[in-house]
Amino acid sequence: MYFDDFYIGQYFECGTVTMTEAEIIEFAGRYDPLPIHVDKEFARRSHFNDIIASGFHTLCAVWGQWVIQKKLTHEVIGGLSIDNAKWLVPVRPNDTLAVGAEVIRLVPSKKAGRGVFGLKVTAVNQKEQIVMTVEASALIKCRPESAAY
Amino acid sequence: MYFDDFYIGQYFECGTVTMTEAEIIEFAGRYDPLPIHVDKEFARRSHFNDIIASGFHTLCAVWGQWVIQKKLTHEVIGGLSIDNAKWLVPVRPNDTLAVGAEVIRLVPSKKAGRGVFGLKVTAVNQKEQIVMTVEASALIKCRPESAAY
Repeated sequence: MYFDDFYIGQYFECGTVTMTEAEIIEFAGRYDPLPIHVDKEFARRSHFNDIIASGFHTLCAVWGQWVIQKKLTHEVIGGLSIDNAKWLVPVRPNDTLAVGAEVIRLVPSKKAGRGVFGLKVTAVNQKEQIVMTVEASALIKCRPESAAY
Repeated sequence: MYFDDFYIGQYFECGTVTMTEAEIIEFAGRYDPLPIHVDKEFARRSHFNDIIASGFHTLCAVWGQWVIQKKLTHEVIGGLSIDNAKWLVPVRPNDTLAVGAEVIRLVPSKKAGRGVFGLKVTAVNQKEQIVMTVEASALIKCRPESAAY
């Protein structure tokens, strides 16, 4: 989809992703190796009673659900920013997160044929708790036929 | 290190991380499978001339450099948020990113024994271009002996 195809408030269901214990430990081992994410003994004695997913892992897993919807593929010129990423509820092994994405920003660029696209992505666990929200922006292409305007 | 051990403006060098082509493709394949990150043929014909790292991959790799400094380990109560993550320059295969982290926020919590810790992390490539900055906040513990105050 091109810049022209989106509207503010447009909403996309993005399916679900299950956060397995193995992937939680593997991801955190590489990118966020805090004891609470990788050390089950430590985590059992913590206030969480078990390991929890790295917030960065949750962010990426949730983002991936948006990407695999393929609403944007070759139309992306480049990612710009992430804002207001909030971790609201811990994500635990085997939690299943339902992901939704809402278009919150559409700003035509000065340079013709492109615009800034902003998306708010929300993840809700199987207990219907919002575990994470995040806003991300990217520069994307307009439809080729509209590029000259 | 505990809440009490940090001060605004405190700066930590966090070493370097090299973004290999294999890891760029592997990460993006799982969490951000846009053609520009995973499809070398597509990427060669793009304005980047080659694949570039997913911004989420850069974020996580850079964050990992902070975490492995072990300035915070068991003192983290929970991550809170990410703000102002900006991707400024594309990250290409074999780019080496030097990571630095500055304490930008220290807010004691109403509940004794804890506070909000905010960090700004910056990544600079081998051409001395800032490729990414990001601010992250977490709730961390005060020193046990100060917890009652």
